[in-house]
Amino acid sequence: MINFKNDYSDIAHPNILKKFVTHQSKSYTGYGLDQETIKVVSHMKSMFTNDIDIHFLTGGTITNKTVISHILKPYEAVISAETGHIFVHETGAIEHTGHKIISVATKDGKLTPEMIQSVYQSHVDEHMVKPKLVYISNSTETGLIYSKQELMLLYDTSKSLDLWLYLDGARLGVALNAKTNDLTLDEISKYTDLFYIGGTKNGALFGEALIIKNNTLKPFFRYSIKQNGGLLAKGFLTALQFDALFEDNLFNEIAISANESSRYLIEGLHSLGLELHSTPTNQQFATLPNEWIKALENKYLFEVWTMGDKKSTIRLVTTYQTTKADIDSLIRDISLLMNKEGLA
Amino acid sequence: MINFKNDYSDIAHPNILKKFVTHQSKSYTGYGLDQETIKVVSHMKSMFTNDIDIHFLTGGTITNKTVISHILKPYEAVISAETGHIFVHETGAIEHTGHKIISVATKDGKLTPEMIQSVYQSHVDEHMVKPKLVYISNSTETGLIYSKQELMLLYDTSKSLDLWLYLDGARLGVALNAKTNDLTLDEISKYTDLFYIGGTKNGALFGEALIIKNNTLKPFFRYSIKQNGGLLAKGFLTALQFDALFEDNLFNEIAISANESSRYLIEGLHSLGLELHSTPTNQQFATLPNEWIKALENKYLFEVWTMGDKKSTIRLVTTYQTTKADIDSLIRDISLLMNKEGLA
Amino acid sequence: MINFKNDYSDIAHPNILKKFVTHQSKSYTGYGLDQETIKVVSHMKSMFTNDIDIHFLTGGTITNKTVISHILKPYEAVISAETGHIFVHETGAIEHTGHKIISVATKDGKLTPEMIQSVYQSHVDEHMVKPKLVYISNSTETGLIYSKQELMLLYDTSKSLDLWLYLDGARLGVALNAKTNDLTLDEISKYTDLFYIGGTKNGALFGEALIIKNNTLKPFFRYSIKQNGGLLAKGFLTALQFDALFEDNLFNEIAISANESSRYLIEGLHSLGLELHSTPTNQQFATLPNEWIKALENKYLFEVWTMGDKKSTIRLVTTYQTTKADIDSLIRDISLLMNKEGLA
Amino acid sequence: MINFKNDYSDIAHPNILKKFVTHQSKSYTGYGLDQETIKVVSHMKSMFTNDIDIHFLTGGTITNKTVISHILKPYEAVISAETGHIFVHETGAIEHTGHKIISVATKDGKLTPEMIQSVYQSHVDEHMVKPKLVYISNSTETGLIYSKQELMLLYDTSKSLDLWLYLDGARLGVALNAKTNDLTLDEISKYTDLFYIGGTKNGALFGEALIIKNNTLKPFFRYSIKQNGGLLAKGFLTALQFDALFEDNLFNEIAISANESSRYLIEGLHSLGLELHSTPTNQQFATLPNEWIKALENKYLFEVWTMGDKKSTIRLVTTYQTTKADIDSLIRDISLLMNKEGLA
Repeated sequence: MINFKNDYSDIAHPNILKKFVTHQSKSYTGYGLDQETIKVVSHMKSMFTNDIDIHFLTGGTITNKTVISHILKPYEAVISAETGHIFVHETGAIEHTGHKIISVATKDGKLTPEMIQSVYQSHVDEHMVKPKLVYISNSTETGLIYSKQELMLLYDTSKSLDLWLYLDGARLGVALNAKTNDLTLDEISKYTDLFYIGGTKNGALFGEALIIKNNTLKPFFRYSIKQNGGLLAKGFLTALQFDALFEDNLFNEIAISANESSRYLIEGLHSLGLELHSTPTNQQFATLPNEWIKALENKYLFEVWTMGDKKSTIRLVTTYQTTKADIDSLIRDISLLMNKEGLA
Repeated sequence: MINFKNDYSDIAHPNILKKFVTHQSKSYTGYGLDQETIKVVSHMKSMFTNDIDIHFLTGGTITNKTVISHILKPYEAVISAETGHIFVHETGAIEHTGHKIISVATKDGKLTPEMIQSVYQSHVDEHMVKPKLVYISNSTETGLIYSKQELMLLYDTSKSLDLWLYLDGARLGVALNAKTNDLTLDEISKYTDLFYIGGTKNGALFGEALIIKNNTLKPFFRYSIKQNGGLLAKGFLTALQFDALFEDNLFNEIAISANESSRYLIEGLHSLGLELHSTPTNQQFATLPNEWIKALENKYLFEVWTMGDKKSTIRLVTTYQTTKADIDSLIRDISLLMNKEGLA
Repeated sequence: MINFKNDYSDIAHPNILKKFVTHQSKSYTGYGLDQETIKVVSHMKSMFTNDIDIHFLTGGTITNKTVISHILKPYEAVISAETGHIFVHETGAIEHTGHKIISVATKDGKLTPEMIQSVYQSHVDEHMVKPKLVYISNSTETGLIYSKQELMLLYDTSKSLDLWLYLDGARLGVALNAKTNDLTLDEISKYTDLFYIGGTKNGALFGEALIIKNNTLKPFFRYSIKQNGGLLAKGFLTALQFDALFEDNLFNEIAISANESSRYLIEGLHSLGLELHSTPTNQQFATLPNEWIKALENKYLFEVWTMGDKKSTIRLVTTYQTTKADIDSLIRDISLLMNKEGLA
Repeated sequence: MINFKNDYSDIAHPNILKKFVTHQSKSYTGYGLDQETIKVVSHMKSMFTNDIDIHFLTGGTITNKTVISHILKPYEAVISAETGHIFVHETGAIEHTGHKIISVATKDGKLTPEMIQSVYQSHVDEHMVKPKLVYISNSTETGLIYSKQELMLLYDTSKSLDLWLYLDGARLGVALNAKTNDLTLDEISKYTDLFYIGGTKNGALFGEALIIKNNTLKPFFRYSIKQNGGLLAKGFLTALQFDALFEDNLFNEIAISANESSRYLIEGLHSLGLELHSTPTNQQFATLPNEWIKALENKYLFEVWTMGDKKSTIRLVTTYQTTKADIDSLIRDISLLMNKEGLA
């Protein structure tokens, strides 16, 4: 089976495993208080203009949950696109910590200043929750990215309304390395209060690096990590992985490779004249007749994103492991299906 | 520095890393729904007489938190020794899910049927929480183990009072491989409702295997894992580690090695005539003058368990990595300190 | 000022206060375990065909919160119209107990079987919450009522999907006494799993009577009341009030009076040719130019329901205290405003 | 039956009901935003030197729950005597909001600076909760009171450790009116961060007045009341009751009367040479042979506080309704039981 299903089906990038193997004889202090972690954190801090705090966590949901539990008072709520990962795909993890998510209908999964202002203005008194945090994802759940201008405006709006802005960077690598991207990692820290750099979907075994810029949100964060069950005994494992990712440009290379395959894929799909939702990152969406989808499922792994009676939309994800041959095969097979022939 | 600090300061046992390296080119379905996980679960199930469910989680606190959140109704509480890990060292993770822990003073960190009955009888009406779950650890937080007779009685008591019995097996390996142990892994499943087999402190990078025997507690457990932030995207990583641990007897060998070192250590300490809390597993406790402790800290890593004005108690943990030379060195140095000489 | 603001601005119906005054010399056991409560509960039980449990609580939000906290497992969610009181006007009280509310857009604030099925079908796996409870209000937040046919279908749908159906009866009195209503109190218990009879908005000082029919939901409910802070020390006070409400038909008389005033009001408003949302219960909605609203606010109390640039919609609530003169005055004044004259 | 069971078995003091009856024709804004509430709050504020906020709530548990939920971050905990109401008798209501209660063994139910310091010093890092709030009751759960010196020292200790001090005043009336008391209501506000004045156990139908002095804790408290289900629709009812309590010294008179009866009772019990726990407030405790207790239960209502094999301790509570005749009767009957005769 050729994999277009997701970007977390590999064990890890070879460099990351190599890092473990070469350090195997060493001994570390637990819970991320070891010298290796301190060294990696120090190196990563040097990548930012602002004085930021860094915490390593094991996955996206636990990072989102810990952040929101840490930040909000019980009666405060988080604003999210109705397609936001925390609203749809975390089994009520945020509500489990006691907080309402105020969802907003969007055109394309991206929040705008107007949407935030509208939520803010409609929450007027103590009979309703108090909006206090804005949650966005970059890239978004459907592969789009925020421009520098868009992020700046969201940040300005948030500040003017005394809201915090949090960016879920589960797929930050492909966002920052998109052709159309004009944001740097440092600018992400400038125009948010906190955000995380996703490792899991960018070649790591697991691990996300949370960057907290806003000083108000920094104190006692390790208490929140531990309370939410996210303080790994062998914390040094996450640090070692980010060490591998941020030496020799590996983090970007992995993302660039995924994006290039994605571009090659979307060009191929486009050449077939299909109905597409095209993105600058590693997720592409094609709407195909259900019988083609059924046929493709015999040879390819992918997700059916939205199901229709006759046509459905599938999601195709590329990674650093995707080959030109994988894509050529898929394009060829769809082309055969268009001609009412079987798969190659 | 020679390490007696804990059993989670290594990256992982070489066989575990080897497992990752040899599988590196493979591709897996996410969230523990892959074929490898199914195979490992199937193999592990064959180790039990009862029909049990298995779930892999990343660490002890998140396992405890997820189990208790899944099992209890809001007004139900868990009974624990006042030395229990959930009561003392999890930053209120259990209370964070809304549940009270009813703590019990014990002689040695082990619960008895009488203690459980006493708690049960003192909680009489709706003005108090309803005890519903008994939490024990094996080995305990101070290295002791439950005998088969003790566990059977706790289980019988729990059943007669309509309580569930949950065993925290963060250090189950050294417990089952203690010289004085008379329990098998299968019997643990027989005399509890659910328990977990700790990987993190027995050679894995991370990972605990939760075994649910009681049919009432099985449904929808994956919802609770996801909601509590514990559903690893690359779930196959934990399965691969337990595959390595449960092939060729590695799980037991790692524990046996730790216990043997521990026995060699306690014999050495005993020969010096020290004040000791001696255990059959991989934790030993010695009470020493504070100035000796200060001197030892220059050469050895260990935890000061309880601090006194003149004397304090230190914890010495052995692992599969501990060498005879490490222990000889420590015994020699304490002996020199007894003779008012410096470290060797 | 003439009051059309709400149905909880009076101290209480005189018969209720009289009940307190005549019982003043008596002494009662606390927490609702007294003989008076037992007697009232017994009388109320006789009003139902099914064997139901009755609990008295102090208000609507705490009743909703306690019910939902009691019923749902942590990963289970409640389905509500997006206009539902729990979704909009309870400051995240439900989420504070850890549960997501899945909101549904509706035509008129009423849920339909199709909406429930759609939510059910879109929540497919452990990455999403599990819908388990359907929440409806009767009368709804905008004064409409469910017909027997509609409620039966909702109940059938709920049962077929293994969902519970809970009816918020904060304004059940006016619903059951609406001209177009074809449901009896007993039928409400038949076609729901549990519901409450609102006292606060029907002449009591405070107090709601929760009716639990479904046997699965009955055990240990008093634990949930206490834990949620709703177990009144002087529980007999609520029982005494429901005693007053359910002797001599007072509960219905209060509602009938409010509905009759409401009908007289809507006829008056209709005769003026205004843009109206007309209901069979004690809430009516009129859309008026903002300058008229501003003028009316000098003489009348009411809520502006939705605000527009030029026109806004106001809510007019009638109660057993509303007089024909109050309504005549309002109609007259609106008529004067239509003629560009000042208030009478 | 003669009532010594508790101080909440009456409907309410006649003056309080009278207040309702005389205001019956009036109409009020909901949720405590009415003019009457504003007037009562203004009057009560004049009783304090500091600028304090006042909120009216319906009962003790919901007040404690709302306060603690409002004040603490998720990883912060409250320190309480192990006899504290929140620790023992609130069905885990505090833990239900996510917070651990750190219980302390005490001599007599009163916390001391040393106990607080000891808890503070033993909670050293992110693996344990962070103590942040000190909870005391005055009078305590067993009828004792704090002296001015004791409260000042607790407050100083709390401030020096950056902890908040909260006083549960469910029985503050009898505490402040005890013969041996040297604290004023104003001083309570001076030496705590917040506290509440109990109405329920001092003649009201229901209602507690929360006094917040610490400015940090004031903002958005109404959000927390609503979220916790404690915002009464007819909030004016609580204000009207406190109006009655704080005009013409009624609050103190009710308490003085209860205390005087209590003193007369304890003198009588003392004259019989019984084993007593004597207090300056309205709760007294006597240890009697179980057969006497059984006999007394035929004629008197009281609680068995702690049960023994041969002797048990009973609690005797006096109120403004207790008469000299009630007490004389009880003393006489115990005296008859001592002489092996039947009850009078």
